[in-house]
Amino acid sequence: MVNQSLLVLNSLPVCSPLPGVSSATPTEEMNGAGNLMDFLDEPFPDVGTYEDFHTIDWLREKSRDTDRHRKITSKSKESFWELIKSLLDAWSGWVVMLLIGLLSGTLAGVIDLAVDWMTDLKEGVCLSAFWYSHEQCCWTSNETTFDDRDKCPQWQKWAELMTGHAEGAGAYVLNYFLYVLWALLFSFLAVSLVRVFAPYACGSGIPEIKTILSGFIIRGYLGKWTLLIKTVTLVLAVSSGLSLGKEGPLVHVACCCGNLFCSLFSKYSKNEGKRREVLSAAAAAGVSVAFGAPIGGVLFSLEEVSYYFPLKTLWRSFFAALVAAFTLRSINPFGNSRLVLFYVEYHTPWYMAELVPFILLGVFGGLWGTLFIRANIAWCRRRKTTQLGKYPVLEVIAVTGITAVLAFPNPYTRRSTSELISELFNDCGALESSQLCDYINNPNMSRPVDDIPDRPAGPGVYNALWQLALALVFKIVITIFTFGMKIPSGLFIPSMAVGAIAGRIVGIAVEQMAYHHHDWIIFKNWCRPGADCVTPGLYAMVGAAACLGGVTRMTVSLVVIMFELTGGLEYIVPLMAAAVTSKWVADAFGKEGIYESHIQLNGYPYLDVRDEFTHRTLATDVMRPRRNDPPLAVLTQDTTTVEDVEALIKDTDYNGFPVVVSRESERLIGFVQRRDLTLAIKTARQKQDGVVSSSVVYFTEDAPQLPASNPQPLKLRRILNLSPFTVTDHTPMETVVDIFRKLGLRQCLVTRSGRLLGIITKKDVLRHMAQMMNQDPESIMFN
Amino acid sequence: MVNQSLLVLNSLPVCSPLPGVSSATPTEEMNGAGNLMDFLDEPFPDVGTYEDFHTIDWLREKSRDTDRHRKITSKSKESFWELIKSLLDAWSGWVVMLLIGLLSGTLAGVIDLAVDWMTDLKEGVCLSAFWYSHEQCCWTSNETTFDDRDKCPQWQKWAELMTGHAEGAGAYVLNYFLYVLWALLFSFLAVSLVRVFAPYACGSGIPEIKTILSGFIIRGYLGKWTLLIKTVTLVLAVSSGLSLGKEGPLVHVACCCGNLFCSLFSKYSKNEGKRREVLSAAAAAGVSVAFGAPIGGVLFSLEEVSYYFPLKTLWRSFFAALVAAFTLRSINPFGNSRLVLFYVEYHTPWYMAELVPFILLGVFGGLWGTLFIRANIAWCRRRKTTQLGKYPVLEVIAVTGITAVLAFPNPYTRRSTSELISELFNDCGALESSQLCDYINNPNMSRPVDDIPDRPAGPGVYNALWQLALALVFKIVITIFTFGMKIPSGLFIPSMAVGAIAGRIVGIAVEQMAYHHHDWIIFKNWCRPGADCVTPGLYAMVGAAACLGGVTRMTVSLVVIMFELTGGLEYIVPLMAAAVTSKWVADAFGKEGIYESHIQLNGYPYLDVRDEFTHRTLATDVMRPRRNDPPLAVLTQDTTTVEDVEALIKDTDYNGFPVVVSRESERLIGFVQRRDLTLAIKTARQKQDGVVSSSVVYFTEDAPQLPASNPQPLKLRRILNLSPFTVTDHTPMETVVDIFRKLGLRQCLVTRSGRLLGIITKKDVLRHMAQMMNQDPESIMFN
Repeated sequence: MVNQSLLVLNSLPVCSPLPGVSSATPTEEMNGAGNLMDFLDEPFPDVGTYEDFHTIDWLREKSRDTDRHRKITSKSKESFWELIKSLLDAWSGWVVMLLIGLLSGTLAGVIDLAVDWMTDLKEGVCLSAFWYSHEQCCWTSNETTFDDRDKCPQWQKWAELMTGHAEGAGAYVLNYFLYVLWALLFSFLAVSLVRVFAPYACGSGIPEIKTILSGFIIRGYLGKWTLLIKTVTLVLAVSSGLSLGKEGPLVHVACCCGNLFCSLFSKYSKNEGKRREVLSAAAAAGVSVAFGAPIGGVLFSLEEVSYYFPLKTLWRSFFAALVAAFTLRSINPFGNSRLVLFYVEYHTPWYMAELVPFILLGVFGGLWGTLFIRANIAWCRRRKTTQLGKYPVLEVIAVTGITAVLAFPNPYTRRSTSELISELFNDCGALESSQLCDYINNPNMSRPVDDIPDRPAGPGVYNALWQLALALVFKIVITIFTFGMKIPSGLFIPSMAVGAIAGRIVGIAVEQMAYHHHDWIIFKNWCRPGADCVTPGLYAMVGAAACLGGVTRMTVSLVVIMFELTGGLEYIVPLMAAAVTSKWVADAFGKEGIYESHIQLNGYPYLDVRDEFTHRTLATDVMRPRRNDPPLAVLTQDTTTVEDVEALIKDTDYNGFPVVVSRESERLIGFVQRRDLTLAIKTARQKQDGVVSSSVVYFTEDAPQLPASNPQPLKLRRILNLSPFTVTDHTPMETVVDIFRKLGLRQCLVTRSGRLLGIITKKDVLRHMAQMMNQDPESIMFN
Repeated sequence: MVNQSLLVLNSLPVCSPLPGVSSATPTEEMNGAGNLMDFLDEPFPDVGTYEDFHTIDWLREKSRDTDRHRKITSKSKESFWELIKSLLDAWSGWVVMLLIGLLSGTLAGVIDLAVDWMTDLKEGVCLSAFWYSHEQCCWTSNETTFDDRDKCPQWQKWAELMTGHAEGAGAYVLNYFLYVLWALLFSFLAVSLVRVFAPYACGSGIPEIKTILSGFIIRGYLGKWTLLIKTVTLVLAVSSGLSLGKEGPLVHVACCCGNLFCSLFSKYSKNEGKRREVLSAAAAAGVSVAFGAPIGGVLFSLEEVSYYFPLKTLWRSFFAALVAAFTLRSINPFGNSRLVLFYVEYHTPWYMAELVPFILLGVFGGLWGTLFIRANIAWCRRRKTTQLGKYPVLEVIAVTGITAVLAFPNPYTRRSTSELISELFNDCGALESSQLCDYINNPNMSRPVDDIPDRPAGPGVYNALWQLALALVFKIVITIFTFGMKIPSGLFIPSMAVGAIAGRIVGIAVEQMAYHHHDWIIFKNWCRPGADCVTPGLYAMVGAAACLGGVTRMTVSLVVIMFELTGGLEYIVPLMAAAVTSKWVADAFGKEGIYESHIQLNGYPYLDVRDEFTHRTLATDVMRPRRNDPPLAVLTQDTTTVEDVEALIKDTDYNGFPVVVSRESERLIGFVQRRDLTLAIKTARQKQDGVVSSSVVYFTEDAPQLPASNPQPLKLRRILNLSPFTVTDHTPMETVVDIFRKLGLRQCLVTRSGRLLGIITKKDVLRHMAQMMNQDPESIMFN
């Protein structure tokens, strides 16, 4: 009935053991909302912090920030120095953004350069300077002509270097062997580093970042070690030739940078809510450098990962994304002033009739998305539940071995996936020498370089088509097994590669059809002989967008990223058509994108803003205690003793307790947090004379004057949250879900006619939603 | 103490009398939140609708939509026909978007064509076909060469046509006279049409749309008449040569289209919440066609006008914006395949040192924004409070007369503002013949057309500089008086013109400095002689962005719109630098943009998501009844008689009443709406035997069995909202503000220990915020 995987919070996450999750489950339930005003001058430390694997209380964080801000503002009137300090505080947000942009741009540049070098290292080495990649090596060489730019004497393949023979079967085998060996070495290093130093560095990180941004705490996930190890192992993993990309992990890296710089300012380091605003912006910076798309990055953060995204964060994200892109451009890792390898500019228009193949590519993308998500989740579940998960290093080695062995013979899989995408996106100019551009030129035609008419395909193109088809099958299969292994792995690039290959194949097919049958009615209107009417590269780009959309369910941010890659408003309609089709097709088979699926698989407490709750249940159906449960654990305002409280703390593991006037009237007066209660009693027993086990705990404004024989009372009103969030038992659950989502609550008390009846926590809400969805899965298909 | 204008809801709006506002004020206070489940099968009509000038209840609207959706889903299992209907319902959102895109794109195209023709009509007429604009007329002429494309025999100025003399003082005076006459005719027609047929068609409409999107109801504001009249008068107003633009009104027109198509589907026409989702998307479509910037349009809707913008709306907005842009492109009003007149492509890079003038332009933009907002608001306030407001037609005529008389002598103000901006944005190519491009060419230099080195300015440029400076002053002054008159008027274009003029002047200055002093240290590194290092057109664009940003306080959407106008990622950094500087400078003088200022001026109940409330007040300080007020008007669940209820309804004008267990215990059980209560009692008195004035009204689940002598009881539980929203009296107001904002509440009940204490309505919140801001205005300057 109930989908267990949804509820099992104590299962292992996608690619690393979270040691504390299982113990977190029961205590995660309750924690007080509301104002911390009374706490600000508290003597005990750690008030207002959260334990690992707990959910933060957004309202409380906001309240705390406002208090802090109020303090600074009132102090700023006292002296000039305080005014300066308050100005610095107001500007610290922009400073953090600047730093994030600078660091994540720099790291992205370093990663790009290192990957470039190490990918080429699998094939050969530059004799003049071993730290040069193939391209850099031949650039700096004076002996190369433009046509021969891939071959220069300084760059030697391993076989050539070792045996002196560049050609022949022996050289091929030796190159093959060394290619596989390097790949195995890189991936072994990567997985070992991850295992030993930073288990959190594995995977793409986006599901976890989504969860963290929604208010969950995973300590160390964005730590310094994770940053360092993820950066290093990302280079290794990408260089090993595995079917994975650097884009998703770059978002994780940028978020680590964000977290790092948060610690410079107490405004952010001490407030989990403010910290998440910075992290949202950092995610935007990450995508900005991953795709060279600052606007796309901001929209990605908004559409895909962020939970709370006020307008102020929008502006700051944009700033961070711009700085990051600008920094990366200054580093200029690809030597072409572009931020990504596969930047491309088209000059030919597209025609209405082409929307048909574009939409077909959208359908393909949607189907690929569905297939990938289902197969990958099934495989990851198997990894978690069987012996397989116990041998992560072996798994990585095996997958790398298979990938390398299968990839080498095919020129389209041997090279790095970014280069493949770049070649597929590119339009064939007159000077292009690649196989894919082996068209038969009409010698009589002399036209400018960038306006070449459609030509018949030569044997090279047909050859390339076969190789591309094989590469497509290979990529589809291997990516399913690669994503989720214990190394940094993004799936943007493999998804785009799948789509780009499919798109290019379709594009060439349409192009040849249009050339050979330009009298057909569908081509007649727009494709006269000698015209340049079909751009196969554009099909590749549309296909890439469709496949990426099918997997991630991005729409607007996806189109904007692609738009920033092409730099032409012209192609928005094809891209949009493919992206929307792909989303619709994929959604028909299941609402969740890959990130939500992985969040579910790992049982993170994530309340998706996109899920619509449309059931007719009421708060009373969800609240606890349920019918046969013991009554709700409450404190009374003036009759509970210290002993009673200590017993309650010992016997239960709730994170907080409602305080009522008396057990008879059950009229709610507030909510007190377990952590605060424990600390307060401990402090009082140590420091306050006369507080003993039989002392009465008072939550009222004034404790009555007691005879001297009675033990000293303990006044705890100042740790009482006097504004707990309540709903009535008749409130529809859709409203409750809405409230939880929009206000970021951890729990909510349920009353009827002013009497306390029960409590609903975020996890109760999630559990109820999962339950309802399973009972009646088709009801959420529409809308 | 309290800024009165903020609170006066019954004052007149910016440009038209809202007849109902004054009566709306007292009844606007209270209205029930929550589930309408019980109401769905209600016999009385109009349940769940709102009166004019009332605020909607977002939670209730959402709840109603979920109910409707649930019904359709459960019905869809009954028959195939119902399934089809449910699918149609699910797709209706996309259909509406498609229709909005098509209609608003078409209207934008028609408006562009008509404006083009009528603007030229002020100067002359095309003899071969009078419906041709100047440009079209000369295009179709075979006798024109490229150089002479502005002069063709078919196009005759009025003087030439009437007297046969094209030159000379007589011709000039006649042309001048006719120019002013046409302008007066157009504007007279425009203001008369607005006055007689659709008073709501005046102004830009964006402040009102913001208010409507935030949940206020202004019936007829988006009606068919408004759509028709606004479209027609917009053409007239723009053609009259007044200092106004069509961009803001186009957003209003698009929203009218959205509202029109909402009426096709009961899903949208009967649900004010869903309707607003459509309107948000329509606003995006409006900006999309106004600037040819679909992505910018979506971001504008998100950043500037929308209140509730779920992700689903993001996707749909994007779709609508794309369809609209595509439709406009198919109409191709400017004959250049571009969506706007001032689309431009630059090819030269910019240099770090240029950031200094760009930031200076940002400062100028911020200052202009401040000046414009203050002066315009002061003028509009004067218009509202003095005799001036009583003669709108005269005002329009006078301003048009002054504008036309002053504009004609200066070639830069005589033409349409869009054309001016287009010329200022454009880089001077080698073939450009305008005054602004009168550079002294080096005859020895032969270079490609689009890479012309910096040249010394000729006399034409210096002449143009003077004229531009005069135009700048003229535009600044006249725009202040124009915006807010009773004709459709947008301020995007005038603001951009001010910025573009200033930017171009600065650009030419920098260019000449760089040319004449290329040995200065600041130019040395990047500006060698013979290089094309300064692009004055780019400065114009940066200036335009800065001024627009200063007035509207847009940032991201502004940069994206500008980016879509230039189509180059290159220039994002200059644009961003200027936009952010301008926002900072303008914010330092006052947080509000022009739209918020006009919303305040008109006293609309708008709760800005951007205002941060940071004061230390509690719910108890804001709730009513205040200390000396009469007690809160409540109903009891089982002791009030029909007579009592009727008396309460008669004596008070609240929109709803809390229901409590008894007056002694004051324990809240629900909230009942005035409208529902009135209708229910009326229906009961008519149809239910035995219900008389002394009948007791029961809100309990079961009415007790009464002796037959007692009058028949009236059971009203089904109109009782059992889940009213409550907070405790200790809740900080910042939390309350947050709740109102995020959940879109109309009112919230205040309790203490389960007892009802008072009520806080949206207007109480707004009033309190205004009060707090005035007490301590500098506290909101930071953050």
